[in-house]
Amino acid sequence: MAFDSLFCSVLAQVARVARFVTHLCDWASLATVATRAPVEGQPFSNVFSISDGPELQSSGVPYLYLTPMEISVQDLQVSPVSSLSMSLAQTDFCRDSGYDPQSPLCAHVILSGSVLQINGSEADFAKKALFSRHPEMMDWPHDHGWFFAKFNITLVWVLDYFGGVKTVSPEEYFQASPDQTSVRLASDTLHITSLD
Amino acid sequence: MAFDSLFCSVLAQVARVARFVTHLCDWASLATVATRAPVEGQPFSNVFSISDGPELQSSGVPYLYLTPMEISVQDLQVSPVSSLSMSLAQTDFCRDSGYDPQSPLCAHVILSGSVLQINGSEADFAKKALFSRHPEMMDWPHDHGWFFAKFNITLVWVLDYFGGVKTVSPEEYFQASPDQTSVRLASDTLHITSLD
Repeated sequence: MAFDSLFCSVLAQVARVARFVTHLCDWASLATVATRAPVEGQPFSNVFSISDGPELQSSGVPYLYLTPMEISVQDLQVSPVSSLSMSLAQTDFCRDSGYDPQSPLCAHVILSGSVLQINGSEADFAKKALFSRHPEMMDWPHDHGWFFAKFNITLVWVLDYFGGVKTVSPEEYFQASPDQTSVRLASDTLHITSLD
Repeated sequence: MAFDSLFCSVLAQVARVARFVTHLCDWASLATVATRAPVEGQPFSNVFSISDGPELQSSGVPYLYLTPMEISVQDLQVSPVSSLSMSLAQTDFCRDSGYDPQSPLCAHVILSGSVLQINGSEADFAKKALFSRHPEMMDWPHDHGWFFAKFNITLVWVLDYFGGVKTVSPEEYFQASPDQTSVRLASDTLHITSLD
């Protein structure tokens, strides 16, 4: 295989891993820049439930269900630029495989981009995506001003094997198939079957 | 009970929850300010293994094992100011209790502060704390310049019940007992027994 083809093949594989991890994860950590005293201007990490689609209907876009009452959402209202990380450490995969959460073999994906409110048909899809995997959301307090949002990806960082982080463009990411059968985690292709 | 005493009692309880979650969690999400193109100046979320002490020997201080080759560690070398979030979503507690990861009932704790390299007797304790709970670390590549670090806490944010985030000072946090038997999660005291 020519170097160009080999490189594209490896890149496509990394993009598939990113799609796979994003679809599998039910929650993620969001980093914002804090807007409240006494931590104004400091990075701030928080936990949010996500869904990129109902099970086996992956869109690649992490959707969120947010309220302006939430502290990180208040940060986003000042600057939507943020980062979302997801790790297979939240599934049984890493534990069952004996991979430490910090090991790159316990695949984790970091998205750079921004959180944007959505409406119309995209909000309809987000609702289906989120409520099917987080049914509790349907009962969250109606007076909290909940709205649907998406993480608008500008760059994808993938840690799935030794040798440092790899980056994937949004185009490569969205072209890749999140289909589990097409994903070969660099750590061990055999283990993937245990995720069924 | 006078209001002052009641307030102090509630605060102590919140601090205990923070200590409990920090001790229970094996990994955390670290938010830094990115120092590399094309995301320079943007918040960046990443995954790290942590330990605040060997099992049942909680210090309250999250220790980390880092290498300068890691991208977030490169951010920390420019500015150590960062944020560390930990959630019971990473344990079986929330799933077994039917609490969505974004629900405050699925207790999560956010630390503000900075990551500092440590040496001497504190590094000895960090090594014991980390290697006992992350034995794989002992075999990580010897040429990567690994060092021990601590998350130096300036403020603790606790989401463990409805009504918004609560804050706890480092003094209140370190005074609290992380002892499981003394912790009453606001969500449901009965569930705590399932964490044994």
